[in-house]
Amino acid sequence: HVHESVDEGVDARDDWARRRRKGIPTDKQLLVVACMDERIPVEDALGLSLGDAQIYRNAGGKVTDDVIRSAALTTQYFDTTEIIVVNHTDCGMMSASDEDVIEGFEAAVDGDLDDVDLDPALPELNIGDASLAEWVRMTDDIDAACAAQVEYLENHDLIPDDVSVTGYVYEVESGHLRRPGERVAEQVNERV
Amino acid sequence: HVHESVDEGVDARDDWARRRRKGIPTDKQLLVVACMDERIPVEDALGLSLGDAQIYRNAGGKVTDDVIRSAALTTQYFDTTEIIVVNHTDCGMMSASDEDVIEGFEAAVDGDLDDVDLDPALPELNIGDASLAEWVRMTDDIDAACAAQVEYLENHDLIPDDVSVTGYVYEVESGHLRRPGERVAEQVNERV
Amino acid sequence: HVHESVDEGVDARDDWARRRRKGIPTDKQLLVVACMDERIPVEDALGLSLGDAQIYRNAGGKVTDDVIRSAALTTQYFDTTEIIVVNHTDCGMMSASDEDVIEGFEAAVDGDLDDVDLDPALPELNIGDASLAEWVRMTDDIDAACAAQVEYLENHDLIPDDVSVTGYVYEVESGHLRRPGERVAEQVNERV
Amino acid sequence: HVHESVDEGVDARDDWARRRRKGIPTDKQLLVVACMDERIPVEDALGLSLGDAQIYRNAGGKVTDDVIRSAALTTQYFDTTEIIVVNHTDCGMMSASDEDVIEGFEAAVDGDLDDVDLDPALPELNIGDASLAEWVRMTDDIDAACAAQVEYLENHDLIPDDVSVTGYVYEVESGHLRRPGERVAEQVNERV
Amino acid sequence: HVHESVDEGVDARDDWARRRRKGIPTDKQLLVVACMDERIPVEDALGLSLGDAQIYRNAGGKVTDDVIRSAALTTQYFDTTEIIVVNHTDCGMMSASDEDVIEGFEAAVDGDLDDVDLDPALPELNIGDASLAEWVRMTDDIDAACAAQVEYLENHDLIPDDVSVTGYVYEVESGHLRRPGERVAEQVNERV
Amino acid sequence: HVHESVDEGVDARDDWARRRRKGIPTDKQLLVVACMDERIPVEDALGLSLGDAQIYRNAGGKVTDDVIRSAALTTQYFDTTEIIVVNHTDCGMMSASDEDVIEGFEAAVDGDLDDVDLDPALPELNIGDASLAEWVRMTDDIDAACAAQVEYLENHDLIPDDVSVTGYVYEVESGHLRRPGERVAEQVNERV
Amino acid sequence: HVHESVDEGVDARDDWARRRRKGIPTDKQLLVVACMDERIPVEDALGLSLGDAQIYRNAGGKVTDDVIRSAALTTQYFDTTEIIVVNHTDCGMMSASDEDVIEGFEAAVDGDLDDVDLDPALPELNIGDASLAEWVRMTDDIDAACAAQVEYLENHDLIPDDVSVTGYVYEVESGHLRRPGERVAEQVNERV
Amino acid sequence: HVHESVDEGVDARDDWARRRRKGIPTDKQLLVVACMDERIPVEDALGLSLGDAQIYRNAGGKVTDDVIRSAALTTQYFDTTEIIVVNHTDCGMMSASDEDVIEGFEAAVDGDLDDVDLDPALPELNIGDASLAEWVRMTDDIDAACAAQVEYLENHDLIPDDVSVTGYVYEVESGHLRRPGERVAEQVNERV
Repeated sequence: HVHESVDEGVDARDDWARRRRKGIPTDKQLLVVACMDERIPVEDALGLSLGDAQIYRNAGGKVTDDVIRSAALTTQYFDTTEIIVVNHTDCGMMSASDEDVIEGFEAAVDGDLDDVDLDPALPELNIGDASLAEWVRMTDDIDAACAAQVEYLENHDLIPDDVSVTGYVYEVESGHLRRPGERVAEQVNERV
Repeated sequence: HVHESVDEGVDARDDWARRRRKGIPTDKQLLVVACMDERIPVEDALGLSLGDAQIYRNAGGKVTDDVIRSAALTTQYFDTTEIIVVNHTDCGMMSASDEDVIEGFEAAVDGDLDDVDLDPALPELNIGDASLAEWVRMTDDIDAACAAQVEYLENHDLIPDDVSVTGYVYEVESGHLRRPGERVAEQVNERV
Repeated sequence: HVHESVDEGVDARDDWARRRRKGIPTDKQLLVVACMDERIPVEDALGLSLGDAQIYRNAGGKVTDDVIRSAALTTQYFDTTEIIVVNHTDCGMMSASDEDVIEGFEAAVDGDLDDVDLDPALPELNIGDASLAEWVRMTDDIDAACAAQVEYLENHDLIPDDVSVTGYVYEVESGHLRRPGERVAEQVNERV
Repeated sequence: HVHESVDEGVDARDDWARRRRKGIPTDKQLLVVACMDERIPVEDALGLSLGDAQIYRNAGGKVTDDVIRSAALTTQYFDTTEIIVVNHTDCGMMSASDEDVIEGFEAAVDGDLDDVDLDPALPELNIGDASLAEWVRMTDDIDAACAAQVEYLENHDLIPDDVSVTGYVYEVESGHLRRPGERVAEQVNERV
Repeated sequence: HVHESVDEGVDARDDWARRRRKGIPTDKQLLVVACMDERIPVEDALGLSLGDAQIYRNAGGKVTDDVIRSAALTTQYFDTTEIIVVNHTDCGMMSASDEDVIEGFEAAVDGDLDDVDLDPALPELNIGDASLAEWVRMTDDIDAACAAQVEYLENHDLIPDDVSVTGYVYEVESGHLRRPGERVAEQVNERV
Repeated sequence: HVHESVDEGVDARDDWARRRRKGIPTDKQLLVVACMDERIPVEDALGLSLGDAQIYRNAGGKVTDDVIRSAALTTQYFDTTEIIVVNHTDCGMMSASDEDVIEGFEAAVDGDLDDVDLDPALPELNIGDASLAEWVRMTDDIDAACAAQVEYLENHDLIPDDVSVTGYVYEVESGHLRRPGERVAEQVNERV
Repeated sequence: HVHESVDEGVDARDDWARRRRKGIPTDKQLLVVACMDERIPVEDALGLSLGDAQIYRNAGGKVTDDVIRSAALTTQYFDTTEIIVVNHTDCGMMSASDEDVIEGFEAAVDGDLDDVDLDPALPELNIGDASLAEWVRMTDDIDAACAAQVEYLENHDLIPDDVSVTGYVYEVESGHLRRPGERVAEQVNERV
Repeated sequence: HVHESVDEGVDARDDWARRRRKGIPTDKQLLVVACMDERIPVEDALGLSLGDAQIYRNAGGKVTDDVIRSAALTTQYFDTTEIIVVNHTDCGMMSASDEDVIEGFEAAVDGDLDDVDLDPALPELNIGDASLAEWVRMTDDIDAACAAQVEYLENHDLIPDDVSVTGYVYEVESGHLRRPGERVAEQVNERV
């Protein structure tokens, strides 16, 4: 009967629409942590389709407390077993000095940055004795930064030990991913 | 001469590859703040192409300190003038009680959560007297939550006053965006 | 010889063009009873192609005497073994009160509705003591209405007992079918 | 701002999903009355897209009381100003004699057809002194039948006088529409 | 080696370009005899591709001495084993009376048609006592004409007995082929 | 109203289906006379679509009495004002000697060719004192043959003087048309 | 894990980008030697894709010392095992006499050609007692020239004996390759 | 008349097939000098179509005496006014030391390289006192090499002074062209 195939479609839609409360994981059980840069085609670069992976993105693709919160939730409650970090060349985090950024922020609030809630929904959050520049996390070298983010995730207590963590640098100049440190483009211009 | 059109291509590639350090903004001067859920086709839902907008995504599409950090950087240094928040139905943040989440975290670290660095790259970060559940930010009602995130961004000191902030709820069950509170699907089942 | 494959085409065309008088049933032996609303892509929603199913459509997708006539003919003479009812949200039958509709009809005929032949080809047809509003069949709740139409068909003497009858509500707001009563869209907005 | 074009999309979806209760007519202000036969590509034959027209279909494309109910509602409440009737060659209504059909019905109910409710939702509906064969409406000549249906609609009190009514016969053997009586295929086989 | 596949292409081209003198038959060993009318998609109607069949076409798709010449050559020298005749409805050969055609010809030559060479390359060719109208071959009934052409070919001494001959009428009004006499379109308009 | 555009479609179909008896000429007022060879894509080579031109084809693309009959009819009754002749390289008419062809025919009829009706529908047709080889019309040089056919048509009394006649040779080895005598391929292999 | 398929992509890119220094040969281990003419679609004519073959092209597709240099390098260091030579009809090398070319060169340098370095990067290169016309290498017959280039390559000491060498002439007038001397186009115009 | 557009096609084909001897230049009046490497999509990278440009390619994209011969011919006789040089990263010319290459050649000829004709068609050609390594032309730095080739062409007496010469490096690792020395990929990995 035709209604049997129609019912299959109805059920598939229900599974999709109520996936989270029915306890269905992402199709690839994958969380991506990437930079929010507009030039990164995250899904295409990793070969992902809608439904395959949760995708965390922030300025720089850095492991912050928000990444830990998000990664802990998905690895512990949504059956995620893999994390891939994607940083990229020409990242905005490499486009200025720490000093210039902090000065700009101070000018913006027209006063003392200490009086600003870093988290408007959680005013109690603070960075103790750390400097604001440490919170902003500018980057010196994108390959080193990528390797560091992988390490932060591998070692954190709220991320299960058996979660696989891998990192890549997306080259905006070539449209390809590379492993951290493997700068192919610098190896092909001169006599071997 | 042919080399003139070739040169145009060479220059366009340079603009793309070194966009950030050349001070070129995103094509739409837009930052999106969305949930990391695997079912949200963020670009398609908003009609965006690669290059148009920076896209911040975390668990729940919540305004955290990491959102503030990212939004402050892009609005102050990268000429971003608009922020769009995208939350969605059947969000994972609505799939459990606060108690269940915290219990799970405690079991994971096998001890006291107070001893865990929330931010591995910035151990000084802490939430003072706030409860861990406040940091996790589970959600009761997705429309109310979306409206609240918009407000947090509109009122924060590090986001310039003239930045436009708008929020939408993406319906995973229909594939459409709605304005917070406008639940069309609940209005069409009965006699007017 | 080429004429053999040409003959196959000639025969296939004859089967198509004289299908009814040659006693060939629809490809899926299916009758659909749906609302006449312009927003219902009946074939696409059910996965049907030209030739698969007969499609009855009227205002509201209601089981009237015309539905019984049509369903009795196809189940008894054209080998149809399945009926699927498709109602839909935002149906025009839910857009006004009984009183408003009858008042409008009365104004239209500029006099007494009792003098109007309900069926111009069969003037003897009448509704006895029933009210005109019962004949018009406005709807209060689309899911309940759909379930009721299924029941009318399952119980009617002119529809063979072994005919399968199933009902769905097509959501114009989402483009999906649901089983009556399973309003997914109302279940995904709040904490479980 | 990007949210302006997003808002246009949100509003367009609301207009579509709540079209009927917002009082928006079909795109072409058209009602089609066609046969339910599986071989009639109603939309393609008339050049219609989803949203353009309401489509009434029953066995034979006959003007019954259900057609009058549906046509009266749409012309009076939904701003419909045109009706197109589509009958077709090799119609099932021409595939048997009146006697054979009635005999079959009697065998089906295994007794007296007078005891059967013609309309299960409106048991008071009856056909007075008319014969059941008149209610079933078998057809002798498809072109004459089509012209008759047009006339029924043009003359009915519940259909406003300024509604345009046109009829066509769809040829299943050619895939083309013809005006009633214009049987092109019979005019091209012999010397003029 | 790559040159091996290149050589295959070179050889295939040689077979195509010198097919006739190399004694290679048409791909389907088929000759079609069809009318020259501009509305007949001969190849599409028969499912043929370039290379499949030789296609003879003249006014009316009639078997003339030129057809016999062409058919004798291909069946005896080019391994053709099948002939398909295609006539069609609304043929120009049915658009006037014999008298009108002859009168027109006489006016054209402004004198006696007997003085005109019917075949400019073979002035000796003549039609003896036959009338010019017989040479022109106007048609009364297209199905009868098609059947007659098949018979002419089947019985001719210069066409081998084992050549298969089949005839079809192409309906310009429907785009379909029919066997001579099987006028489907005339059988589907009335009650059986 | 929608029925207006539907009526346009109905009328267009009537014009197509009854084109000849309504006195509508071919779209390009063109007759093509081409060889029946299976390798000639006549329509593509001349840039023609269905409906554009009548297409006469026989063995060799020769001007026979059948060509004169067909061309006289279309130029005088169907408003055709142009004739294009298409001959081609590697024509079957160049693949044997006159003697071989006649011998083969004699073997086929197993007796005297004089007893065979050249035209089965018109037994009175005969070739007087001409030899059968002249009737078969083998070809020595394709470019010369093409030019000769053009001349036959230009000079014939039954073809109006103002009809344009042009000839081309289609090269099966290159897929291109050339004007008779302009053998490009023979001019490009050696030093100028 | 998803990173495994991502790693495959990263490795494949590395193999492509550093193919030469990793010692990976071309996909078909093929060197093509062709004329630089703008009308030769070298890859399409030979059925090659990017990556398949190295393609040497110069004026005339002649075997010069530069061809020997290039062919020796690829056969000895890059595992190339096949060479295909592609010359073509209407080559520019056949468009003038030796005298005209030399005169033009002399006019260009406005003096003695002996004072001009034939190779600006290697001024010591000279042609001894040979004439400049021999160095320019105009062509008399394209098929003979093609065969000669094949022979030069087959016999040269720096090309390994087991390298396969094949030559073709690309016909710009037909878009096809032919083997040297096989001028199909000249064989299909006249009676066999 | 249709034959007019057919004639246009016939003439266009003649212009294409006899372009060189009719004195018609390339469509862009351009000569490209590129490396023969299999990874360089020369036409795509420069935006060229068939017919646009002559394309010289050798090992390394070096300016040899063969380049001078080819460039002199096209600039002086074929109206070419522009030359573009395309070298590329990971060129085979950078994959070994001079010594290794010469040793390999010596092993290949199994004796003295002095006895080998560098140019088999022109045995008088020799390199005087230059070393064989100079003739092979290995490369140390691809950007410097590209700039040098441009200079050789700009300064040569046989290339007219008003010919435009431009050079690019094609990056096999990114699929993009760059101007010599502009290594974008090396500028985007670290903090500015």
